[in-house]
Amino acid sequence: MKSHNLKPRYDPDVDTIVSGIMKGERHILSRAITLIESQRAEDEQKAHEILDRCLAKKNGAIRIGITGSPGAGKSTFIEALGEEIINQGLRLAVLAIDPSSKQSKGSILGDKARMERLAGRKEAFIRPTASSGCLGGTSPKTHEAILLCEAAGYDVIMVETVGVGQSEVAVDTMVDFILLLMLPGSGDELQGIKRGIMEIADAVAITKTDGDQAGIAAISRAEFEAAIRMLPPKHPFWQPQVFLTSAITGTGIREVWQNISAYFALMRKHNTLEELRRQQLKSLLYTLLEERLKRAFFSNAEVIGSKESVEQKVLSGQLSPFSGANALMEAFIPRR
Amino acid sequence: MKSHNLKPRYDPDVDTIVSGIMKGERHILSRAITLIESQRAEDEQKAHEILDRCLAKKNGAIRIGITGSPGAGKSTFIEALGEEIINQGLRLAVLAIDPSSKQSKGSILGDKARMERLAGRKEAFIRPTASSGCLGGTSPKTHEAILLCEAAGYDVIMVETVGVGQSEVAVDTMVDFILLLMLPGSGDELQGIKRGIMEIADAVAITKTDGDQAGIAAISRAEFEAAIRMLPPKHPFWQPQVFLTSAITGTGIREVWQNISAYFALMRKHNTLEELRRQQLKSLLYTLLEERLKRAFFSNAEVIGSKESVEQKVLSGQLSPFSGANALMEAFIPRR
Repeated sequence: MKSHNLKPRYDPDVDTIVSGIMKGERHILSRAITLIESQRAEDEQKAHEILDRCLAKKNGAIRIGITGSPGAGKSTFIEALGEEIINQGLRLAVLAIDPSSKQSKGSILGDKARMERLAGRKEAFIRPTASSGCLGGTSPKTHEAILLCEAAGYDVIMVETVGVGQSEVAVDTMVDFILLLMLPGSGDELQGIKRGIMEIADAVAITKTDGDQAGIAAISRAEFEAAIRMLPPKHPFWQPQVFLTSAITGTGIREVWQNISAYFALMRKHNTLEELRRQQLKSLLYTLLEERLKRAFFSNAEVIGSKESVEQKVLSGQLSPFSGANALMEAFIPRR
Repeated sequence: MKSHNLKPRYDPDVDTIVSGIMKGERHILSRAITLIESQRAEDEQKAHEILDRCLAKKNGAIRIGITGSPGAGKSTFIEALGEEIINQGLRLAVLAIDPSSKQSKGSILGDKARMERLAGRKEAFIRPTASSGCLGGTSPKTHEAILLCEAAGYDVIMVETVGVGQSEVAVDTMVDFILLLMLPGSGDELQGIKRGIMEIADAVAITKTDGDQAGIAAISRAEFEAAIRMLPPKHPFWQPQVFLTSAITGTGIREVWQNISAYFALMRKHNTLEELRRQQLKSLLYTLLEERLKRAFFSNAEVIGSKESVEQKVLSGQLSPFSGANALMEAFIPRR
């Protein structure tokens, strides 16, 4: 619905957006990601066309997932690593998954101040992407944003995830390499780390190892190395390493980047990257399917017609949620 | 498929299970949770009946979610708080959400040794519940296990979640009170903590504040208190507090329990608990629906028939994942 109080918004067509993306115009790329994230039906058709056309352009970008607990210093680390990457002459896109708040949006403090140095570089593109309202805990929007960044010619796409848990397993289906950031001292708590998160890590960087943390950081490193040895290998040719890093002093940042580069050199040598891309596309297909399926269900006339009454019966205790779910499924797909 | 090498397993009927649960028999409760978690169609019908009958029994149990990053000391804290609760003459059930590993199952080290002291008490029931293969990142199984524990007469149900992120938002739809556990020193990293997790916390306990962590813990406490003041209130009558705790010295454990008790007294006074239960049932209804919907899709004959070919086209680049998803949706629900 358009408001008369607003100026008519600049609304470029699909051709303009696609050619803008291909030329690497950041404001067009940003607008395309907004279009992808839109919930409006007319935007979806447009986004679909843009994505179909951008998908055709393959540029060999590498995709890195950066994960770790809140407080592990992800933003600071990404800034330091990002500058290292840009100084190598590469263009970098950073997609920060923004876990949706149910009550409001954004983070408590200073999100705007995040990655200021990196945001000022013309070789960098930084964009938060929403993970809200998606089935399976995965955001297909993030995956779609990766595809657009690739079409825009970025050499390295970083996807930041917040939290240690399901969002990492989701991002694992989109990226080629996962870097786990851990604080010093957390190594003695390996009992608390579930296999899932350690198993998908291709490297571990212990952060903030400067100052009086050096001793404890060295112990943590030994503990993580021991833990990695206990895990089944994710790739037959790759043994994850543990790095001591500091975004302040710059310690270990270059080593992490060299490790990532070595990984991709091996991936290419073994022709594994192509197979990984195929798996990523397959994963996107099923994530999209779940999303569409849910939408089809909730826009079905029979479901809409009986939803209110089933819900009321469940709330009043007349119907169990189990029987209620069966009743609504019956409305959607009547038994023949 | 039954194997001749196995003894016929003890397979109690619905009546036996329901009456065993009602009598508080732990091995029957445990068996019923196993039935809930089963993927077999015949078990599902049985589980549905058991749940329908158990749901009718309301006992006024309180549901507490315990969350925090890996390493925050959740198990140790739950042991200490659990003993405090049992010493008050209450019966306690602990459901530990087990985030699924994609490659293998379980945690790296010593899960069996977790909560040993608590597991030895007859007033306690400890049970890991799987979160695998569920839509939306939520496990309806966990919610169902809560309902069974309530029917079995437990006064306090604790749900432990691992990770800070989507699993907490999921558990927020099942429990009445969320306690966030944080390590000392993590407070200065509030930038890294998204609103989502702080907003759903009803109390924060800073763990491991014994020994040389006392100073930094006090600073963390002040920082968390400042952060909480910036947030919109979750309940109009409740202001979350921050506690300094140590599972080793016992510091703060009783205070946390008194705080939780005060919360529930207020909830009852304001008649809020009943409304919360209704919202929880509604949430369970929709979680179950998503699960059933996905199953209906993937067992649909038309979908099964075209799935392979669509997938191949997407993998070979002939079809984008977006167009592929549309094609499979068309197979499931042909346009009229």
